[in-house]
Amino acid sequence: MYTGGYMGKVLRVNLSTKEITTEELPEKIAKDFIGGAGFGIKYLFDEVPGDTDALGEENKLIFAPGPLSGTSAPCASRMAVTTKSPLTNAVGMALSGGYFPVELKFAGYDVLIIEGKSEEPVYLWIKDDNVSIRKADKIWGMNTIDTQDVLKQELKEESARIACIGPAGENLSKMAAIINERRAFGRKGVGAVMGSKNLKAIAVRGTKEVPIGNEELFKKARSAMLAGMKESPMLYPHFSKLGTPMVVDATSALGIFPSENYRNTGEDDYTESLGAESSVARTLGNEHCYGCPVGCTQMKLARGGNLKYQGTMSDPEYETYYSLGSCTGVKNHDAVIHADHLCDKLGLDTISVGVTIGFAMELYESGLLSKEQTSGLDLRFGNDEAMVDAITEIAYRNEGIGSLLCDGSKVLAEQIGQGSEKYAMHVKGLEFPAYDPRGAKAHGLNYVTSYTGADHNRGYAPQEIFGAEIPKAYDRFTPEGKGWLTMYNQDLRSATCDCPTMCGFLIDMALPHMAEENTADMVSGATGLDIKKEDVMVIGARVNNLARAFNLTAGLTKADDTYPERILTEPIKEGGSKGHYVSPEELEMMLNDYYDSRNWTKEGVPTEERLSELGLDEAIVKLKEKGLL
Amino acid sequence: MYTGGYMGKVLRVNLSTKEITTEELPEKIAKDFIGGAGFGIKYLFDEVPGDTDALGEENKLIFAPGPLSGTSAPCASRMAVTTKSPLTNAVGMALSGGYFPVELKFAGYDVLIIEGKSEEPVYLWIKDDNVSIRKADKIWGMNTIDTQDVLKQELKEESARIACIGPAGENLSKMAAIINERRAFGRKGVGAVMGSKNLKAIAVRGTKEVPIGNEELFKKARSAMLAGMKESPMLYPHFSKLGTPMVVDATSALGIFPSENYRNTGEDDYTESLGAESSVARTLGNEHCYGCPVGCTQMKLARGGNLKYQGTMSDPEYETYYSLGSCTGVKNHDAVIHADHLCDKLGLDTISVGVTIGFAMELYESGLLSKEQTSGLDLRFGNDEAMVDAITEIAYRNEGIGSLLCDGSKVLAEQIGQGSEKYAMHVKGLEFPAYDPRGAKAHGLNYVTSYTGADHNRGYAPQEIFGAEIPKAYDRFTPEGKGWLTMYNQDLRSATCDCPTMCGFLIDMALPHMAEENTADMVSGATGLDIKKEDVMVIGARVNNLARAFNLTAGLTKADDTYPERILTEPIKEGGSKGHYVSPEELEMMLNDYYDSRNWTKEGVPTEERLSELGLDEAIVKLKEKGLL
Repeated sequence: MYTGGYMGKVLRVNLSTKEITTEELPEKIAKDFIGGAGFGIKYLFDEVPGDTDALGEENKLIFAPGPLSGTSAPCASRMAVTTKSPLTNAVGMALSGGYFPVELKFAGYDVLIIEGKSEEPVYLWIKDDNVSIRKADKIWGMNTIDTQDVLKQELKEESARIACIGPAGENLSKMAAIINERRAFGRKGVGAVMGSKNLKAIAVRGTKEVPIGNEELFKKARSAMLAGMKESPMLYPHFSKLGTPMVVDATSALGIFPSENYRNTGEDDYTESLGAESSVARTLGNEHCYGCPVGCTQMKLARGGNLKYQGTMSDPEYETYYSLGSCTGVKNHDAVIHADHLCDKLGLDTISVGVTIGFAMELYESGLLSKEQTSGLDLRFGNDEAMVDAITEIAYRNEGIGSLLCDGSKVLAEQIGQGSEKYAMHVKGLEFPAYDPRGAKAHGLNYVTSYTGADHNRGYAPQEIFGAEIPKAYDRFTPEGKGWLTMYNQDLRSATCDCPTMCGFLIDMALPHMAEENTADMVSGATGLDIKKEDVMVIGARVNNLARAFNLTAGLTKADDTYPERILTEPIKEGGSKGHYVSPEELEMMLNDYYDSRNWTKEGVPTEERLSELGLDEAIVKLKEKGLL
Repeated sequence: MYTGGYMGKVLRVNLSTKEITTEELPEKIAKDFIGGAGFGIKYLFDEVPGDTDALGEENKLIFAPGPLSGTSAPCASRMAVTTKSPLTNAVGMALSGGYFPVELKFAGYDVLIIEGKSEEPVYLWIKDDNVSIRKADKIWGMNTIDTQDVLKQELKEESARIACIGPAGENLSKMAAIINERRAFGRKGVGAVMGSKNLKAIAVRGTKEVPIGNEELFKKARSAMLAGMKESPMLYPHFSKLGTPMVVDATSALGIFPSENYRNTGEDDYTESLGAESSVARTLGNEHCYGCPVGCTQMKLARGGNLKYQGTMSDPEYETYYSLGSCTGVKNHDAVIHADHLCDKLGLDTISVGVTIGFAMELYESGLLSKEQTSGLDLRFGNDEAMVDAITEIAYRNEGIGSLLCDGSKVLAEQIGQGSEKYAMHVKGLEFPAYDPRGAKAHGLNYVTSYTGADHNRGYAPQEIFGAEIPKAYDRFTPEGKGWLTMYNQDLRSATCDCPTMCGFLIDMALPHMAEENTADMVSGATGLDIKKEDVMVIGARVNNLARAFNLTAGLTKADDTYPERILTEPIKEGGSKGHYVSPEELEMMLNDYYDSRNWTKEGVPTEERLSELGLDEAIVKLKEKGLL
């Protein structure tokens, strides 16, 4: 059936019964959802009821690379993990790169579904067709770096690729990540789901070749892609040398680099301490994902300053300079490197952790959090040592500050009460990423509407932030047309990046003018399926509609498509976005535009017509069962 | 020429000229010195003048596994590194295990000699016959764990084995180690020599097979060895489960587990906090060197206590429970695990570092070191946080406490003056290991006479400490016969462990009754050379005499064969060795006995007769040149 791209197999591991089975990947799923996030959402929707307890035995953890992963397509070594998120109670989908994604393909699998819950800590060892569940008592408790190291030794497989959880995942922190190498399936608490299943790690070694369905088309598309990359004025000349940290300077200039839990955006300048220049001074070199000629990951060394940070090596991204930097008022660059490393090591999402600590700092400074509650930490904005110490407390859910912050901003606000939720910077429980939505309305509308919560990656708006001209540049302050634009960005990102699976940076920076065509050609070339340019956005819409349907069955409503009160009432006080905020009326207007564009009801429910067009009969059935349609 | 055991090749790398050459391993060297430390000392003596500056371009770094390394001999994956030590100005020889040693053999080399000094930081990449010197600007500054990780990625060789230095070696700390995996060529500042050459790392990947010279004899000897191991009441039943940390309980019971820089030996009990029981509670599992069925390394996890230590994994040995534990008055077990990890990471010898910190603590408590000089650290005995912080200061030679302690106890005493040298616990500059010599006279006499300084591994005395009956048990408090016994232990250790290269634990615990015979048979079997049981102790004597000759040409004299004043004047105050010390007269008597046994002069110079018997004409020539003979 499969001439290429896919290995044709789904591996299913039930940790309760210890059953390990394989099944064929249905061609219809391959055609309709391509791979990655598409596969994840499809299997999640079909197999996990919306009202499942995210940390219960019935939740599943679905790992899926795409049809391009493991081929010679550049920048396609990515994988989605999909589950019901304990942080948002919505679809939890997170992507990571590196080498782990392709290794699963090389072992022969397009999808790995983890079900049930082991009684004892275990890990999974996949060596091509040999799959076994093994006792993890030796590695349980270890950090993610030691875990990978020790497992390779135990398996006598230096080339095994390992994804694992750290103490944070074991302790069911809703901010826990799954770490592979130094990379993370970072957000939405996917690490807590893995921890709830008593699954410490997944080790993979594969030796198979990913077949190509239509060599000629694939080669042609690949050449066009490489040419597009070469022509990009951004990709090699700048991005390859500076990586995402270069964005600190850009968003600071726009006045949307958030600081001090958003109370201070635009008022303080972080470019000198955390911007590109200070970043380059600490850079050791680039790291590449499998098959990537760009290598945007910038490995940095903390060389001095505080004794505690001296000599720490890590690769903080732009988002981390915000969350563990400006959002907590920290300007000590070496502290950010150290904190980033700690999060990787302990298995935590840097964004959610930093934003939650920033929120706690605001509560502390305003007297809503006492020094007793912070376990003695002096949680003032800018206190980098307190920020760093809080990370370990969180990972271990230590009594005091650890258990208070361990489950993120939303839970923290619920514990504190007293109106604190006004300053809890999250949507649906997922903490804000590094762009103040008051100065980028479509980018922000994506936070509100993304199926994963406040997630920049599901519908990044380069048309606002960088004036990108595909389909056209937009004024970042006005609400007009932002509903449609947000839909466009979400569908495009899903279809061209999250499903195939392809690096988002590549699409944004080098291929926006040819994203749909190139995706159609690359996927058709790799798989031998016939996917046309016109199909691409339909696939993107299918993914976003099915994810929305899942969220509705999980109990989410239009009321969850909103901002914390600060964004709706407090204008930015200084800088390039001074005076701007998103009024409730403005949000309502943009939301209606968005729902309309999607052909959803005023309550944000996909219409039967739209679902039918997209071939999502399963969604119609389930929404009707729930009385939502 | 070589039928087995050896690869027949010496690899020579000159970092000044960038010349890379190979030469044949001379058969005479193979026969006379076997391998490992023997080869190292022979090449050092022949090629490095005694008065060479240890951190100068003329010093060399000689890596040598033995003829058993890489064969199926159990417990033989060891390697010696030999150089002129910057810490002792004497022969600096340190051994390590793991996988690096055999990998060099698999690449085809018996000896690797590093010469000269690179202008820029470099690393060496040895892949079988392909050897290259590469720029290390990307990894310079990194800790040893990151270095190994990043180099494997850079080389795309997950199976490469890497020995490297950390910040301590780069900063020329005389306590700097060379780290491979988590293991160390720990002592005598070998890491500083590597740093002085601007050599960050040596990466090796080999695919050759080590030939066996006499299969029949080798198999027979190997079977006898494995049978001896099986019969040992200690090796598998206890040592394999507990590793060296079990010794804490044994030496505490004897009153020779040193505490608080030896001012307090026997007065306080560390078995509850640092002994076997608390150790087992933290053990995750064993780690094995290549080809070792025992796996004595005990990987431990710091689970709680201080936030800073939570989650650290490391494998402290007995010596480290002393140096970073009792010697600094620290009872926090998790702090010792964390400190051990820090030393590995930063590339420091745990013994020298701990003892030097212990010495500084005594100076601090007695007012000879001010809080200003300690960079604000409250260096009281038992302050585990100060102990941990001091390690990083030392590795980076940070201004203040870092630069004061960075070069060890002897240099610290020289800087402080005021009679402080009385409490500087070293011989020839090398800090004491974990047995108070006041309660183990032969073991202590080895500290005094070993060619490397206070080094337990060069002539461990199980006959005193554990009542071992080969050749016979000795009373540990009396001086009688200790000169001969020390010589016996030194020669035996050199010939049966340091040269072949074979694990010392194995010889001590399982094979003492057959050490000479088994060594002769194993080496003859592996190499095809004809080495008889009677030759073994002669080889041991040859190694120790040639090393002594080197030290004499380096300017050391009988005056360096002595203890710090504390050992000579202060009796142990409490416990199982209460009242004992080593009077100057007693030491003189034992020394004379030792010199006599060795057929050395009263001044500790080997006689021409003895050197001639051992075939060391090169030593006769050089000592005569210097007017020492």
